[in-house]
Amino acid sequence: MHLKMNNRRKFLKDITIGGAAITFMNSPLNSFGSKTAEKIRIGIIGVGSRGRLHMKELLKRTDVLVTAIADTDVNSIEKAKSIAKEMGSPEPAIFSNGNNDYRNLIKSEKVDAVIIATPWEWHMPQTIESMKAGKKVGLEVAGAIRLQDCWDLINTYEQTRTEVMILENVCYRRDVMAILNMVQKDRFGELLHLQGGYQHDLRAQLFNTSATCCDGVGFGPESIGSAKWRTAHYEKRNGEIYPTHQLGPIAMMLDINRGNRLTKLSSISSQARGMNRYVANNSKGGPEHPNAKLKFKLGDIVTTQLQTYKGQTIVLTHDTSSPRPYNLGFRVQGTNGIWQEFHDGEPDKGQIYFEDASPSETWENPKKYMETFDHPLWKKHEQKAVGAGHGGMDYFVINAFVECIKAKQPFPLDVYDLATWYAITPLSEASIQKGGQMVEIPDFTRGKWKTRKSFIHIKDQFV
Amino acid sequence: MHLKMNNRRKFLKDITIGGAAITFMNSPLNSFGSKTAEKIRIGIIGVGSRGRLHMKELLKRTDVLVTAIADTDVNSIEKAKSIAKEMGSPEPAIFSNGNNDYRNLIKSEKVDAVIIATPWEWHMPQTIESMKAGKKVGLEVAGAIRLQDCWDLINTYEQTRTEVMILENVCYRRDVMAILNMVQKDRFGELLHLQGGYQHDLRAQLFNTSATCCDGVGFGPESIGSAKWRTAHYEKRNGEIYPTHQLGPIAMMLDINRGNRLTKLSSISSQARGMNRYVANNSKGGPEHPNAKLKFKLGDIVTTQLQTYKGQTIVLTHDTSSPRPYNLGFRVQGTNGIWQEFHDGEPDKGQIYFEDASPSETWENPKKYMETFDHPLWKKHEQKAVGAGHGGMDYFVINAFVECIKAKQPFPLDVYDLATWYAITPLSEASIQKGGQMVEIPDFTRGKWKTRKSFIHIKDQFV
Repeated sequence: MHLKMNNRRKFLKDITIGGAAITFMNSPLNSFGSKTAEKIRIGIIGVGSRGRLHMKELLKRTDVLVTAIADTDVNSIEKAKSIAKEMGSPEPAIFSNGNNDYRNLIKSEKVDAVIIATPWEWHMPQTIESMKAGKKVGLEVAGAIRLQDCWDLINTYEQTRTEVMILENVCYRRDVMAILNMVQKDRFGELLHLQGGYQHDLRAQLFNTSATCCDGVGFGPESIGSAKWRTAHYEKRNGEIYPTHQLGPIAMMLDINRGNRLTKLSSISSQARGMNRYVANNSKGGPEHPNAKLKFKLGDIVTTQLQTYKGQTIVLTHDTSSPRPYNLGFRVQGTNGIWQEFHDGEPDKGQIYFEDASPSETWENPKKYMETFDHPLWKKHEQKAVGAGHGGMDYFVINAFVECIKAKQPFPLDVYDLATWYAITPLSEASIQKGGQMVEIPDFTRGKWKTRKSFIHIKDQFV
Repeated sequence: MHLKMNNRRKFLKDITIGGAAITFMNSPLNSFGSKTAEKIRIGIIGVGSRGRLHMKELLKRTDVLVTAIADTDVNSIEKAKSIAKEMGSPEPAIFSNGNNDYRNLIKSEKVDAVIIATPWEWHMPQTIESMKAGKKVGLEVAGAIRLQDCWDLINTYEQTRTEVMILENVCYRRDVMAILNMVQKDRFGELLHLQGGYQHDLRAQLFNTSATCCDGVGFGPESIGSAKWRTAHYEKRNGEIYPTHQLGPIAMMLDINRGNRLTKLSSISSQARGMNRYVANNSKGGPEHPNAKLKFKLGDIVTTQLQTYKGQTIVLTHDTSSPRPYNLGFRVQGTNGIWQEFHDGEPDKGQIYFEDASPSETWENPKKYMETFDHPLWKKHEQKAVGAGHGGMDYFVINAFVECIKAKQPFPLDVYDLATWYAITPLSEASIQKGGQMVEIPDFTRGKWKTRKSFIHIKDQFV
């Protein structure tokens, strides 16, 4: 058990006063004095497809128990229970009694820490409630609904000191980490300009109404998976609504909140056509289907320009409702070189150039550099990562979360990163509402960015 | 001779009243009544390396005479004279008596039309003076120095009706024209988002002080080629200072000023490091060389976001002082597909996807589409374009200029395109000065964009 002492004291106090605590003391999940004493007991709030992927990663480990799950969807709960059974894990406690039963999971003494993988609008309130309950949080990625939520998060952290990690798996993509390694070894020189995008045609998921993904032209409560809730954001919002897959790796490389910070952004958006077109061209829809005519507010391609304190520039792209193969489109450019990638993480699908190493003015295939600068973390954990979700990235992000809790060490991607990255969404919405005007990005660290340690602490141990 | 009638009348009037005109009447270059009657007599203002490339393209033709050249640089004049001699062409009249002798070229009765390939700061005054003299202008590309220059250009055109063509050769690049063909045949569906950049490490030229390009760490009057004048822009300006290679093709595809228009932009710039670093790392310079310490104002990477009336978004990049191989980085994205290119115009160096033709979510090599949709103009003129500058592009841009004059037909890229594209430079400078604020882009057509004909008139004849 690696609860912080103040929480442990609270825990010991709580179990002496309530009936529920007595029941808990008799539960096989009580780890005190048992041979599972060193296991971290995790509750998962949201066991849709993403939450269940995290659950599988957690249950592969010997240092974790998934002791509780919360979801309002019975099918998701049943699927999660099946996973526990198949993986030989005790059945977790279930919290599925409506929208607010997750609060009981958070309060539960069976839970040391939570992972949150719910619809976006629940991320901030659930994170803040967990922090107030002293439960460390691993939060799935999204963007904030309101800028104030980001401040509430920071204020709650500074009151409670309960740590939060944003589970940004792309920060652990093998090529991204090799490039980070090159950045930190000064191969690119001083960084100047970075780009990244969430460029992934999600329309089949956004209109999925069939149990076997993906088929349909509907969305909302009667649909399946993220079509239940994510598509509504496309109807009602216009901005960089999913910024962290692209910004996370960039922020690591630029040491954002660690000697550098994001200062300003401006966003613009294209026409919104892809959602209607998908429905109109689908055999289950057609041009007269209501969703072929519904006004979606989110532009098909949203572009955001950002500036940093140190002078670097960043371009982010959100592009999820147009026909296109997946590609995050990273570009990392410094005074000594440039890398661009065009597919989905394959080390040889891109181009790289270093002034002091490449043939003059000639692109090279990045593969040899990816091998030479393979990140120590990947070298060490490669075998464990094989088979993990999203090309192994999911292993690393869960591993960092669990190992930091065990070692009582700060998370590598913390609450200040979370607030800063999430804030891009409401700020970009504000910029677009103002016709593309530049808006200031708050300093959520309140000046601490000047002295916080670099991301270079992502080393070869576990985080 | 294909001067417009009002100019021809003026011409006939002029030659009856002046001694100079008499001299001209006796010149072998007088085309009236001679067997060279159908030849267009062109004067070239600026015979540096770019002007001489145009001169060679012109002298390959049987329908053109280069009758006059102007330059303040004796070496450039001598090189141009040698070209005329080598190509069996009569020696052109020389105008090299200081900065303003080009005015005598413009006034010269030996000249029907001019091509201007001078330092950027001379483009607008020389173009306007030529228009006032009734001489059609082919203007080499750049960006405007002042926004007012663009209005002066428009006002002069609307008073004189003397036509101007912007000689944007990338509009004639083979892959670009094939993509334009695909756009016009609706293969991309409705366009949504386009990108392009001038991404070309120019530092060797910008610091060239040797007759055999490129060597050195100096710039200014004592240096060679564009280092004489272009580098000063890097010292004194910060903006998208060279927008047309990237914006020209994009504007054609989006029908800018022809049913669509550019409405707003915002620009940001990175640190300025590459110029100093080049000098510091050069054996002729070193870290203590004054140019290693000089403050260059132009950020190494300048990014500009633009919006159009129809709702599309555009991202332009200016990136010429960092180590990198050449790549204009075009991206053309619509409701049915996306193209991106990564090298320098090779048809197979990029990726393309069409929802209605490609394997699901799979990038294709663009080559087969480039062949299928090869532009009729390229198919027809391929043999003539072989060996022309910049991969054949220079043949087409000069061909369009000459053939339009002969046919008394409007130029395909006209004064409104010129003003709009050139205006990006001072507008982006203004945006950066305001910290990245969005600025409005004037409608130089004063409403005529609503009814002007599409660029689809770029057909298989000659333009």
